Amino acid sequence: MPKLINTRTRIADLGKPRVIVIGGGFGGLEVVKGLRKFKVQVVLFDKHNHHTFQPLLYQVATSGLETNSIVAPFRKMFGSYQDFYFRLGEVKRINAEENSIETSIGSVKYDYLVIATGAVTNFYGLHEVEKLASSMKNIVDATKLRNKIIRQLEYALLTEDPEVMNSLMDFVIVGGGPTGVELSGALTELKKNVFPNDYKELDMRAMDIHLIEASPRLLNGMSHQAGEKALQFLTEMGVKVHLNTAVKSYDGYEILLSTGETLISKSLIWAAGVKGNPVEGIDPQVIARGNRLQVDEFNRVKGYNNIFAIGDVALMAGDLKSPSGHPMMAPPAQQQGRLLAKNLKNLIVNKPLKPFRYFDKGSMATIGRNKAVVDMKGIRFQGFFAWYVWMFVHLMSIVGFRNKVFTFFSWMWNYFTFDRSNRLIIGRNEEKISQEELNKQPM
Amino acid sequence: MPKLINTRTRIADLGKPRVIVIGGGFGGLEVVKGLRKFKVQVVLFDKHNHHTFQPLLYQVATSGLETNSIVAPFRKMFGSYQDFYFRLGEVKRINAEENSIETSIGSVKYDYLVIATGAVTNFYGLHEVEKLASSMKNIVDATKLRNKIIRQLEYALLTEDPEVMNSLMDFVIVGGGPTGVELSGALTELKKNVFPNDYKELDMRAMDIHLIEASPRLLNGMSHQAGEKALQFLTEMGVKVHLNTAVKSYDGYEILLSTGETLISKSLIWAAGVKGNPVEGIDPQVIARGNRLQVDEFNRVKGYNNIFAIGDVALMAGDLKSPSGHPMMAPPAQQQGRLLAKNLKNLIVNKPLKPFRYFDKGSMATIGRNKAVVDMKGIRFQGFFAWYVWMFVHLMSIVGFRNKVFTFFSWMWNYFTFDRSNRLIIGRNEEKISQEELNKQPM
Repeated sequence: MPKLINTRTRIADLGKPRVIVIGGGFGGLEVVKGLRKFKVQVVLFDKHNHHTFQPLLYQVATSGLETNSIVAPFRKMFGSYQDFYFRLGEVKRINAEENSIETSIGSVKYDYLVIATGAVTNFYGLHEVEKLASSMKNIVDATKLRNKIIRQLEYALLTEDPEVMNSLMDFVIVGGGPTGVELSGALTELKKNVFPNDYKELDMRAMDIHLIEASPRLLNGMSHQAGEKALQFLTEMGVKVHLNTAVKSYDGYEILLSTGETLISKSLIWAAGVKGNPVEGIDPQVIARGNRLQVDEFNRVKGYNNIFAIGDVALMAGDLKSPSGHPMMAPPAQQQGRLLAKNLKNLIVNKPLKPFRYFDKGSMATIGRNKAVVDMKGIRFQGFFAWYVWMFVHLMSIVGFRNKVFTFFSWMWNYFTFDRSNRLIIGRNEEKISQEELNKQPM
Repeated sequence: MPKLINTRTRIADLGKPRVIVIGGGFGGLEVVKGLRKFKVQVVLFDKHNHHTFQPLLYQVATSGLETNSIVAPFRKMFGSYQDFYFRLGEVKRINAEENSIETSIGSVKYDYLVIATGAVTNFYGLHEVEKLASSMKNIVDATKLRNKIIRQLEYALLTEDPEVMNSLMDFVIVGGGPTGVELSGALTELKKNVFPNDYKELDMRAMDIHLIEASPRLLNGMSHQAGEKALQFLTEMGVKVHLNTAVKSYDGYEILLSTGETLISKSLIWAAGVKGNPVEGIDPQVIARGNRLQVDEFNRVKGYNNIFAIGDVALMAGDLKSPSGHPMMAPPAQQQGRLLAKNLKNLIVNKPLKPFRYFDKGSMATIGRNKAVVDMKGIRFQGFFAWYVWMFVHLMSIVGFRNKVFTFFSWMWNYFTFDRSNRLIIGRNEEKISQEELNKQPM
């Protein structure tokens, strides 16, 4: 039986400059799009065969959207592009001296390299939390969390011990940023509209949703007004918000808080922060605050000529005059990606490069049905209209017309029926529900 | 940290006769529905929290439909039922002398037991095939197969050895029944309409789809005319159909056929047959041909008073005067389920039971765009109209209004765009694509 020849990636040499983009997130996509019809070969590496619309992962986790509505296959997006190559594989290392990358499927030379590897969850050194908590950075995480939420309620039916029952029915979300706020809102709607009918045997008043935030307010990246309103909305909906509170430890059951208080839950959901996800081989001196790569105003990685970084993994200090760089969200990544594509063209035709300036279009978060908060240049509003704007903006941002249509229908369905039809446990471990499983921590 | 009290399932004793239904497939659902508002307690056990519409699994596997369109959560379906209990768990054993079942979450007593556990793939003792081939009996299988089909093409990009490339690009489907026919048709449409644009680097003419059938014709359960037409459609589409041919062995790479011929493929898809999936504890003497439980004309398992079996797992010989019983498809299961619900009511109120008579509405299979074959009482037709009828009947059969709407939109989308948007690799093993993985058999 012959073996695969896999020592090389078989990416054709077109005799054109080769731009390798690592990561097809919001930033990477814009680089690929911007270089279309230009005299370069573009190679996109990603360990998934699809782009993921991360801002809506929380809706997959809470049964509001099906998985496929928020992902789009790269080959579908770029099927009509000339000189574009996609490779499914993980980039292991950059060998800058040789202008090459080592990947899980072989090594490839580049002329220009764009690191667009985004961010990973930051557990701030809490190793037990990392091992035992749920997080939500990709579609597999989101689906696992969905499975877990539903499974906990199925398990809650099997006990009469009130403490054990609470440990299964209570959910603790750490991090009062958009993800934490949106997730606690969506869980509350499940609790209110779906679970009482699904689990008539359970007293749903026993289900508590806690939101833990270390700082004195919610939605730190937004206006004070937005944070206050989000707090009000969540509190009215019954979420127990703990401000000025951090998680000290977690054993899969007991959560020790910085206030000395203890919460009991088998479901700790970590949305407390992210950190850059740089690739090995870059000079460690360049890795700064938040594990991000220091870049100049052209997104060029400090100390390198032909290596660029954009989005969450890049730290450009000068632009915002803030040492923490741009917010780790889609818009800076997209804007940097778009400009970098232009600058790569300029570089190749020997034109001067344009420095990056972030255009802050504002930000928004949704809390629940008819409830959202929006900050836009000078305007701030909350409530039904904000919720409508949130939906519109997200719908327009989802990649692919079909995904837009399906998401729109799902939202209309959910709105008018109060239902969440995707409350499914799907996955390989679903068949493992056994006596031992039930007693094991965490589930 | 307290442990769960999981020695019992906490199913309330309502002082009413308790009917336990094992399995929420087509048959099980009808029993639950039929007993609504009757003076019994109904308990449904299933190892999934959702019903799966198995006839469309092949469309999930070939990227035509998203997972969630063909599954429906039981709690959503039966949320409004009184005295209905769902438990997520696997039934391990029936203790008939004690009128109880042992499950993964504890044991429960029943007054009446309905075994509706359906069928599993029949590998006819070919253990290597069982280990190395793909099959398609549930949503996880279908998603794994989807991942695999796409991954093989991604891998084919990495080799220059024509034999290895063919082993990745060729697909061998075993079994010329509806599943095999539908799957080979759908794969051919991927090959024709989607892959040429996705994999411009590959010569798609090198992709062969083989369909292996042991008997002299396709679609054995249907008319001769339907089998002939399916063969003609598939041949025209380029599928290599091997009739009178069986698989002798498979090592993950080479497939030895009964004709002495050898095919090379890393993707052997087994759709050659199913067998009943009875629960342990039933007298082995009752297990007959096809691993099915012998039942009388009231679906009562031979030798038991209060244990019934319906659908694929039941063998009722008398009705059709055929020793092989009813076809292992949805309609007999549904009809038996419906009648059994009535007979259980009759039994409880001491009325005489009605014997089962199968009403054969006919059967159908789709081969591809505008191509299907339909046999109905006395009428047989093929082609566009048959395809239209196939779609209509399947759409009406999918559980849940929302699933109907989403499936309808997917089909319209696929029809007019020729696209298959769900060509996604999603799953935990997606990140394992490594040097070792590439060389490992099978992938």
